Amino acid sequence: MASPEIDQLTSLLAKLPGLGPRSARRAVLHLLKKRETALNPLIGALQTLADRLTTCTTCGNVDTRDPCGICADPRRDRTVICVVEEVSDLWALDRAGSFGGLYHVLGGRLSALDGVRPEDLGIDRLVARARDGGVTEVILAMNATLEGQTTAHYLADRLEGTGVRVTQLAHGVPVGGELDYLDDGTLAQALKARSPV
Amino acid sequence: MASPEIDQLTSLLAKLPGLGPRSARRAVLHLLKKRETALNPLIGALQTLADRLTTCTTCGNVDTRDPCGICADPRRDRTVICVVEEVSDLWALDRAGSFGGLYHVLGGRLSALDGVRPEDLGIDRLVARARDGGVTEVILAMNATLEGQTTAHYLADRLEGTGVRVTQLAHGVPVGGELDYLDDGTLAQALKARSPV
Repeated sequence: MASPEIDQLTSLLAKLPGLGPRSARRAVLHLLKKRETALNPLIGALQTLADRLTTCTTCGNVDTRDPCGICADPRRDRTVICVVEEVSDLWALDRAGSFGGLYHVLGGRLSALDGVRPEDLGIDRLVARARDGGVTEVILAMNATLEGQTTAHYLADRLEGTGVRVTQLAHGVPVGGELDYLDDGTLAQALKARSPV
Repeated sequence: MASPEIDQLTSLLAKLPGLGPRSARRAVLHLLKKRETALNPLIGALQTLADRLTTCTTCGNVDTRDPCGICADPRRDRTVICVVEEVSDLWALDRAGSFGGLYHVLGGRLSALDGVRPEDLGIDRLVARARDGGVTEVILAMNATLEGQTTAHYLADRLEGTGVRVTQLAHGVPVGGELDYLDDGTLAQALKARSPV
């Protein structure tokens, strides 16, 4: 029987994605054993974020600054905006390191099922950014799901008339992917979008 | 590019056992999204533990009280002490719920390789507890590893002459275990310790 305080921490950690009750217990034991090197720094890091966390009013990224580090970075290409559904998508693209422009985080996708409408995603803000002089291209980097693609089509419609070029991510065989393991939809897309060698 | 503060939290979480960089990022995103319901309660729970965490001077369990909840519980059988290597073992046994006595946490196992000697494990404290009147049985619940069993033999030697009965956990086929998947050592033990049906 661990103390109620320890149980409380275990159950909070167990709710994090990727952790279950067993790994939460192991994490708690690790924290209890390494107070100085693990527990206290973790509290500090969480508290710093809790105190300073904010959402970038320009692009919707989460950061400790507004405008966020990306919007404020003078080295980024201000003529291209890459639209993503979630902050996690922004992080994934930015880790890949091959995009040097700005982002726009919708914070979700259009979904009749979940009742998410265009006004919930702040799409007017995106259209305003696209109209705002310097931007020449908007890349739609929605997930390749039904709802993601519905959102992309809606955005493409809304961005018509702003004068910017609207593009989307290529679909096809993932790098390192084996054909045998790919779904039919991906294979069909890869065939359709085939290019000369 | 996430902010340095977010990166800092991600790398601290990634060091927890059971979490890697990818799951740490997902956990951080979850915390950032659910400030009120996840981030703030987690900070509170960690801070409470950091402030109040202590080691039971009787049994070596970690708790917010000393003596710990188990040692202080009047319903527990004070005549039996179950000796374990680590606090995690105590938790595992206590979750199983079939032992109602007290515990003794060594905080490790004898190991020539790691330079762990009997005096590092506070074994004198265990012998003193065993001699202390009421105790009639000491159960050695070491891991079934070479070092665990070496420790158990050493403890059995040290406890000789205290007048307490020294026992150890049964070895055999785990409940639900399939013979085909068990190692030879376990099968040999299970055969040796066979019992009439």
